[in-house]
Order: sequence, then structure tokens, then C-alpha cells
Amino acid sequence: MTMTMDPSARVDSGVPGEQLTELGANLRHALDGQLAVERATARSTFPAEHLHREPGQTIEQAREWVLNRLRELDATGFGSAGLITKAGESPDPAAAVLAFEMLSMGDLSTLIKSGVQFGLFGGAVSNLGTSWHHDTFMPDITSLKILGCFAMTELGHGSDVAGIETTITFVPETDEFEINSETPEATKAYIGNAARDGSMAVVFGQLLVRGRNHGVHVVLVPIRDADGKDMPGVTTGDQGLKGGLLGVDNGTLRFERVRVPRRMLLDRYGGVDDTGTYRAEITNPNRRFFTMLGTLVRGRVCIAAGGGIAARRALSIATRYGLQRRQFTTPDRPEGVTLLDYLTHQRRLLPAIARSYALGFAQNELTAALVRIQGGGEYTERDQRELETRAAGLKAITTRFANDAIQSCREACGGAGYLSENGLVGLRADADIFATFEGDNTVLLQLVAKALLTEYKQVWGDLDRVGMVQATARVVGQAVLERTAANVLIDRLVATARRQSEELALVDRAWHAWAFEERERHALESLARRMRRTSGRDFEAVNRLSEHMLFVARAHLERVTLEAFIAGIEACTDPEAKAVLQRLCSLYALASINEDRAWFMEHSRISPARAKAIGAQLNALCAELRPQALELAEGLGVPAAWLGAAFLEK
Amino acid sequence: MTMTMDPSARVDSGVPGEQLTELGANLRHALDGQLAVERATARSTFPAEHLHREPGQTIEQAREWVLNRLRELDATGFGSAGLITKAGESPDPAAAVLAFEMLSMGDLSTLIKSGVQFGLFGGAVSNLGTSWHHDTFMPDITSLKILGCFAMTELGHGSDVAGIETTITFVPETDEFEINSETPEATKAYIGNAARDGSMAVVFGQLLVRGRNHGVHVVLVPIRDADGKDMPGVTTGDQGLKGGLLGVDNGTLRFERVRVPRRMLLDRYGGVDDTGTYRAEITNPNRRFFTMLGTLVRGRVCIAAGGGIAARRALSIATRYGLQRRQFTTPDRPEGVTLLDYLTHQRRLLPAIARSYALGFAQNELTAALVRIQGGGEYTERDQRELETRAAGLKAITTRFANDAIQSCREACGGAGYLSENGLVGLRADADIFATFEGDNTVLLQLVAKALLTEYKQVWGDLDRVGMVQATARVVGQAVLERTAANVLIDRLVATARRQSEELALVDRAWHAWAFEERERHALESLARRMRRTSGRDFEAVNRLSEHMLFVARAHLERVTLEAFIAGIEACTDPEAKAVLQRLCSLYALASINEDRAWFMEHSRISPARAKAIGAQLNALCAELRPQALELAEGLGVPAAWLGAAFLEK
Repeated sequence: MTMTMDPSARVDSGVPGEQLTELGANLRHALDGQLAVERATARSTFPAEHLHREPGQTIEQAREWVLNRLRELDATGFGSAGLITKAGESPDPAAAVLAFEMLSMGDLSTLIKSGVQFGLFGGAVSNLGTSWHHDTFMPDITSLKILGCFAMTELGHGSDVAGIETTITFVPETDEFEINSETPEATKAYIGNAARDGSMAVVFGQLLVRGRNHGVHVVLVPIRDADGKDMPGVTTGDQGLKGGLLGVDNGTLRFERVRVPRRMLLDRYGGVDDTGTYRAEITNPNRRFFTMLGTLVRGRVCIAAGGGIAARRALSIATRYGLQRRQFTTPDRPEGVTLLDYLTHQRRLLPAIARSYALGFAQNELTAALVRIQGGGEYTERDQRELETRAAGLKAITTRFANDAIQSCREACGGAGYLSENGLVGLRADADIFATFEGDNTVLLQLVAKALLTEYKQVWGDLDRVGMVQATARVVGQAVLERTAANVLIDRLVATARRQSEELALVDRAWHAWAFEERERHALESLARRMRRTSGRDFEAVNRLSEHMLFVARAHLERVTLEAFIAGIEACTDPEAKAVLQRLCSLYALASINEDRAWFMEHSRISPARAKAIGAQLNALCAELRPQALELAEGLGVPAAWLGAAFLEK
Repeated sequence: MTMTMDPSARVDSGVPGEQLTELGANLRHALDGQLAVERATARSTFPAEHLHREPGQTIEQAREWVLNRLRELDATGFGSAGLITKAGESPDPAAAVLAFEMLSMGDLSTLIKSGVQFGLFGGAVSNLGTSWHHDTFMPDITSLKILGCFAMTELGHGSDVAGIETTITFVPETDEFEINSETPEATKAYIGNAARDGSMAVVFGQLLVRGRNHGVHVVLVPIRDADGKDMPGVTTGDQGLKGGLLGVDNGTLRFERVRVPRRMLLDRYGGVDDTGTYRAEITNPNRRFFTMLGTLVRGRVCIAAGGGIAARRALSIATRYGLQRRQFTTPDRPEGVTLLDYLTHQRRLLPAIARSYALGFAQNELTAALVRIQGGGEYTERDQRELETRAAGLKAITTRFANDAIQSCREACGGAGYLSENGLVGLRADADIFATFEGDNTVLLQLVAKALLTEYKQVWGDLDRVGMVQATARVVGQAVLERTAANVLIDRLVATARRQSEELALVDRAWHAWAFEERERHALESLARRMRRTSGRDFEAVNRLSEHMLFVARAHLERVTLEAFIAGIEACTDPEAKAVLQRLCSLYALASINEDRAWFMEHSRISPARAKAIGAQLNALCAELRPQALELAEGLGVPAAWLGAAFLEK
């Protein structure tokens, strides 16, 4: 039933002025996934007038511009979307993530300022507070009357949140809490909205009640008065210029015995009652701590989305430039060779585009899980843990990819890529810190590995070494590598490949699914064995395993990503788009296997001859996809007019 | 005769206020190599007062600051060093490179502005001009009375210099040349000193004499008058903000039938004589073109040096921060774990430090070759070609490394690394473009591969397939892989390893030398075979080999770098420093083999079991070198007080 299409036909994308190829439109629809309708609507209604900030602004100009832009966006529904405005309302995580995605298409300072205000500050009040907090503060937070800080990180404690030194001490005499920065290292640092605009802060600290430490809790603290002066006992500081995100006013906060009424504690999970006694819904302090942090998972989901879109913007710019720019002539190409005809250029951009799609599909599933769990549906504690692990992991690999891809795109555009007017260097500077905030990527990957080990232990903890070996590989696969998508299909693929892996074609999806699963399963099993040999409490013994842990985490995330890609292809209804996605998926899968082909040979999963053939296959896939480069860029979902690259407008 | 040293003893480095550990001083001395005395003198006399530009300057402030700094540095001998000031003088390339290295310790805009003025503009007048040009212009160039542009790149022609479209047409009637930008693409672009400060330019264009094109030549053209106005027919443009190097006024130049007297042509290699006839010292146009470009090789040597030092600065900052910063406590480390005690952190920084040393030793040899050839000594055309290849290749791999290392250091310093006051993000932004200017890195690596193929063809061109196979591997090795350093030692090492590679320890230098040589030799041989099967003129046929070419180029440069490291260790006289360098060299070599271990397995050069063992050995080497991290940072040669990182001063 395939209709022969006119390849030059253009369809209206819904974005004012944007015309797409049919294939491009269909690829975009496929990548938009379950949220295709909502995303298309968001694109068509997004106010794209002040999308990019003028480079070269002073820090004050940038901060002013961003604050204005934030107000403008919030007024058009792209700010506090999804947040509750009073007690009893349900948050709408899909709307929140979608708004964040749309903001990722423009100035990233605005994105992050919005994320600080609505996601972190508003999110903390919403998730960790109770009715009184919601009714009292949420209307002013969502309308930007109160700008707020998320004061978690301290100078001395970045990744180690449990180790923060700020104290929140209950004072029974006055029924207040006293917030204190106990040491210089307790200074809150890198806090958005702290340097200039914030009038309140959610402050993380150790809750002390009658001499007992109940662990990290969060309290609302006014930090500036109506004139913008520091409140008594509060000292704000400006951390000034950064590598990017110039429009976000990051700063420091210090508290010297600052008092707030008792009810300012965000006490959903634990607080002090009218009798001055600590009471908590969750009694285990460790579980309480992780539950509190867990409600903030949306931040990581959003940063992963934002990083992914930053990479898509860069790849769209570089691909379009690679299609217009010619360099060198050859006897058979006297008009000059288009950059994208060079194999080195194809190898630089096309596998990155493939990975961009892959991570997009994985992100779609992550968003769906967030919506399921935070959108009022039923879920188990295990679902919540799984979401946290997935969010941490995808945030790490997507922002790592974004940094690498944007830089590669800058280089692919040569000197022109270095000019601010072409958009890449600003993007690069802004996205850099995505690798660090909302969790350092290395630390996050270690979290993922630890979660997988825990899961593994729960399944296999009682088996001894012999028992483990006796359990068939297949069972291990099913139990530990729980699938989130396209279950039956992938099970069938893996089963097909298991007994004939060397005979399958390099582009056979069954082989990819098997290889990705083998990589994760074997690496996790051997890590579990090595971990079992350590006491688990000796720093050096665990430290020695940390590179292995990173490998396991990446292998896990690669598998999850491939499976999401496969599910995304299954859901695609346009045959031409589906065929392109199949090739793109092969390119993603083979590039990933190629990267680790040493591991596959070392573990006898691929023969040297087969490994050696992968490079040529990658070249061939690039050549096959080269004619659809424009359509692939369109499918990435960033309208050309929004790219902010002067050289594309010439 | 090793004396037991007090490890806390400090020695005066010669830099005002700098105290080093003895080991650090000895490592620095070793890495300074043949120029140790000169480098130590340069460090001790370098004016370090205005080393770093204040971040947050406007573009105008930055340009002004940089111009002032340039004048200050030139006055103290760190600007035009090494350039001639009149006809008959000999340039001093060692002095020029040394000055460039010192400038690399500070603001990189100043470095590049200096490079444009003295290296490119002054270098072109000096190298491509004759006595009249030298006497007339060099005094004003070296004293900064004339600021000049190096107008080679055009909007339409970056890497393809031979394809530039600007014309330099001889006008016999008036004995003049007419310079014309024939098309919009002929606009000179990314030209330093063009936007603001330049009053002259050396302009590259096609020389047309009586209707005949003699290929690319260079002519001196005044572009601004004494009031800073564009000269008649000249249009200058400002390219404004860039990803970094804010203080360099890059811009565009267009020429509309601009006339200059005949003698303004820089006619050392070809020009028009008094009778209006073209005459050239080198009659082959292709050879003339490459000879002219070849004189500019110093630019690439300098950029390689500058990139290498930028990486050393970043590694010095991140290492020192990693030694002071603690994060998380463990039961056995209640005071907190130092960042550099984490294996992931060690694996991030220590192999990069090892590579930094390795590239430093390779750079020393490159500088020595430049001095030999441009310093008035005897040399063959082959020496010159070899220098050009080496400069192109080391520029590419060193600036690639610099970009990666600086970014990795930024991430290793977390949020603090993102603050401008800690120096890393500015360095990252400025060094980014090193990957592109003075030759796009991908294009340069292809040049290296082509040069190796040419060399190979000269040695083996007459042999057929059978003859090639019959020639023993050893002979091929000797003929093609000509050594530049430690010849006898390396020959012996390789011979030792050849027959017992699998039995040698992973840290055995003989095994490293053999593996590096095998990688290059085999990859080059197979490339030559594949190349022979193409006509060489069919674009796609050659294009398909381009990834293979990049591999060959890198393999060659890795070998050259390892051999330089080995020679550097041989030259080291301090036993303790020598022992540390031995471990560091093993770390460099093993990291390089590890990176390509898939290739080694695919070509049966390493067994899977052996490949698998490399990771643990890398961990072990990192653990061994961890206690000397401070000394290693000292050895990198950038005084701590010059790092410009606020968090190290606290």
C-alpha cells in the first residue's frame, strides 16, 4: 500500500512558516513518539520571537533579558506548566517536561532559570511541602511573584548531599527553626537565583530536634526583603561569570542563625508536630532521605531532555551546513565536493544523528515512566526506583553525548562554527555544565551500577557460585534485564541470535539485541562476583571496581536505549520512515558495538574477523543514509528557522 | 650514587616566588629537554603581572587590553623574538618558538594576536619577501608600528588554499598589481587584525601575468590609512563575537581593483621582473606553491606547542584541585576521600598527564627539527618535507588532545570548574579553535597519511605484491619508519619484542615499541595496497579509504611520540625522575595500546587474554603514580602562581 511520493513535495509542519519533506515530517512524528500530538501543538504555539539571546551581552544585560523572557514564556504557558497552584491539585508531569523541551530550543539560560524556579524551587515546595505550603506559596511561585532558590549544594559538598553541614535546629522556646551555616564549607554554592533575583530559598540542612539529628530536611527561608536587600542573618554572594549560562544568576548563600516559623519546614515526609516532637511518615532515615530526593527525579528527566535537544540543535546546524558547504574540487567533481560527501564528515555526523534518535526514543520511555509515576497512576516502590535509576543514567549518557556532539559539530563547521552568530559555541558553552549539575555524570553512572547490583542481589543473592552458573543465561537475562518496551519482539530477537551469532548479518537486529544484552549481562555478573569478594566496606576494594561499574552502567543504558529504538520503529506506521529508522538503528547499534568491540573479542562474543568487518559496514550505512541527511535533520524536530545559525540563512 | 632526599625539601625554580619539590624540578628539567636552560631563563624573566585577562570584558575592552599587553610583551622581548629586523639577518626560530611557548602560559588572545602579527604576517614578509621588503617593513612590524593581517583563508576556501579566488593581476601599463575579490566567496575571512588594528595585509591570491595564472602568490597591501579608515577599494568587516579569543579582532577583507606597486609582491619564490615577465626560482608551480606554504611551517609548530601548554595548564589546575578537594566519607576515611584517590579520577587525569609529557617530548624534537632547518643549518628537501609532515601531525593530535583534556579537567573540577575565576572555561573556549586554524585537524591528518604513502611509494613503488611480501617486515620497518630519536635503543627494543611479544610484561618497553611499530607498519602497508587498487583519481575510491588514512596518521604520530618519550627518558640524568618517567611512559604507551586494542586483536598482534589484562595494569600504574601527582604537575612546567585559578589560592 506504499504510495509513490514526490520527493520534492513539502508538507506544512504546523510551525509557522516551516515546510518539511514528507519523509522528514514522518521521521519527526516517529521520534516524537507517544507525545507526537502534544509536541506538535507545543511547537506550533511556542513563542519563537525572542528565542536566542544576543551574544556579547554584559552579565547584567543577560540576567535582565532572561528574567524578562522567563516572564514572557510563563505568560504563554511555557513556564510553570504542570505545577500545581494550590493544595489538592494534581501536578501534570507531561506538561512540565514538554514545556522544558520547548524551552531547550532557545536560550539555555532561560531554560535553566525556568528549571530552577519551577522545577527545583517550585518542585520542592510542591513535592516536599503540604497543603499550607501549597496554598501559601504556589500561586506566587507559578506567577513569578516569588523567585526562589534550590539551596542544596554546598561549597564542601556537591555530590555528597547526605554530608551537607547546614543545620536546621528546632527551637522549642519560640516554635521556630534556626538555620545556620556551621562552617565555611557549609556555604550554599552555585545556587541559581541566589545572586540577584531570589527572595526565598528551599534550604537543605541537617534537622536537629532536641539534640538529635534526623538527617537532611528542607526548609523555606526568605533571603531578600522587598527592596532586594539580604534578610538579617543571610549573606548572598554573586559567583559572577561562568563558562556559559550567563543569564542565570548563580550565587552563594550563608545563614547565620536565621529564624523561621516552624511551619516553614517542608514536612511532607518528616517534621516537628505541635508538641515539638519529630514525627515522620517514613521512619527509616535513609529511606526517608532517598524518598525526598526521589521526588526531585523530574529535574534529571528534564536535564536529559534538554541535553538531548541541545545535541539535536547542533547536529541540525552542522548537517545543514555540511549540505551547503563545498570544499576542494576533484577531477570528477569540478563544482567542489560537498562536505557531507566526505566519509570522514559522514562518520562524524551520521552516527551522532543515529545516537540522537536512539536517545530520543529512550527519553520518550523515561518521560512516559515519569508521567505514570508522578501523574497520579498506580506504581510500586520498585517502579519508582527504576525510574530514578533510568533518569540518573540517561541524564549522564545524554549530557555526555551532547557535549561531545556539539563540540564535534563546531569542528565540522570549521572557522564558521567558531563565530557566535552561527549558534554552536554558545550552545556548547551553555550545555557544558549539564554534565555536572543535577548530579555529576560519573557519580550518576555509579549510582546506576549500584542499583543494578542491588537488583541482581535481590534476584540471585541466595545462590552460591555453582547455583549461579547453573541458572541458564536466559533466565538471568529475563530476571535482571527487565524490559520496558517491545518485550516479546526483543525476546524473540535475542533467542534467534543466541545460537548463531557469528552467522547473522552485521545489520541483523537480532544480533544487535543479543550483543547488547550479552554485554550488560556478562559485565554485571562479573561485577557482582568481584563485588562479592570484597567486604564492601573497604574503600580501596570497592574503588578498584569503579571503572568496571562505569562499564556496566553504560552497557545497561545502551541496551535500554536500543530496546527503546526498536519499540519506536515498531510504532512507526510510515513505511519509508520505518525503513530509514531501521538503517539508523543499525548505525546506532553497530557504532555502539564497534566502540566496545575489544570487549566483545576479549569475552569471545565476536570473532576478530567479524569485529574487523564492522568498520566497513559503518561506512556503508553512512553512504546509505547520506541521501536522507536533510530529512534526518528535519526529523530531529528543531525547526530550521529556530536554529539561530547565520550561515544557514545566507 | 642516589642520595636519600628529604621529600619535603623545596628548591627554588628561578621563577620569582616559586618553590618546587626536588622531584618536580627534575621532572620539569627533563621535560624541558634540549631547551631546558633557555626555558628556565624565559620563565624566570617572563613578565607575569598581566598574565590573565579579566573575564567579562566587552569585546572592545578585550581588544584594547590585548593590544596593550602585546606591546608590553614585545618591549620585554616576548613578541617579535626570533624575527629579522633587516635584510641579511638570520631568523632565530628557537627564540620565536620559546617566546610563543611563554605567551601560551597567559591570555591566549594575546598569544594568537602575537602569532598573527609576528609569526604569520611578519613571518610571511620575512620568509616570502626579499631584501627591499625586509628593510622597508620588518623594523615597523617588529616594533608594532605596522600591525598586519595574514589574508590567506577565504569564505569559500578554508582548507583548500590552492582554490582561492582572489586575483593579483599584473598591470604592465602602470607597473602595478591589481588585487580583486572576484566573487563573494573570495572574501578573506577569519583574518586576525582585520577587524580593527591592521594597517597592512599579506594577501594570498592567484597571480595573473599577461593572461596566465602562475598560481598562488602573496602581495603586501595597505588596508587602512593613518586614521584607521579603509583604503580606497578595501572593505574591512568585523566578525564580532567568537567562541573564545575575544581579544583578537578577526574580520573580513574585500578588495575591489586595489592597486599596489609591483615591488609589493613578496617575490622570493616567484615574481615579475623589470621587463614585466614572470620569473620564478622554482619553475614547477605545484612545488613552488608547497615551498611557499612550507616556509610557514613554524605556525603549526607554534600552535602545537601552544595547544600542548594549554593542556598542561588545565591538567595542573585539575590535579592540584584534585589533591585539595575531598568528597564523601567512608568508614575508613572519616575525614573524606580526596578526589584524586578515586580510581575514576585517576584514570581521568593521570593518563592525560602521561600523554602531556609524551607530546611534550615529541614537541621538543619537532622544535629541534625546525631550528635545524630554519636556523641556517644544512638540510635536505626530504628533511623539510619530514618537518612539514611532523608539524602538521603533531599540531593535529596535540590540539585534539588539548581540547579533550581541558574539557575533562573542567568536568573533574565539577561546578567549581565552570566558574570563570578558576581558569578552565576560558582556556577551553580559547583553545577550541586550535583544532581548526593553521589547518583543520582532519585535513592535516590526511596530509600526514599522504606523505607516508608517498614515502612508502618511493621505497616500495617498484615492488609488486609478491615482492612486498617477500621483503621482511624488519626492512620495511627500517626504511619507512625512519627514526628520529634513540635509534639504536629502539631498534634493540623492537628486535627483542618481535619474537616473544606475548611473554613480555605489559610494562615492558620493548613490547610497547614493537606494538607501536606494528600498528603503524601494518596499517600503512594495507593502506598502500588498498590505495594501489584505486586509480587514485576517482573521488569515491579514495574517499572510502579516508578513515583508514586517519588511523595510519595517528598510528604514525603515536610511534613518533613514544620514541621521543623514550629518548627523553634516556637523556634524563636524575634517577628518581627517570624512574617516574619510566612509569609515566608505560602509562602513556599502555593507554594508547588500550585505545586500539581491538585493532591489535583483529590483526592477531595481541591475544584477547592479554588485551583484557591491560585495564588492570592501567589501574595499577595510576595507583603507583598517584603519590607523585603534585610533582608531576610541577614538572608540566607551569608555575602554580600563573595558573589563574581562584580555588587554588584559597
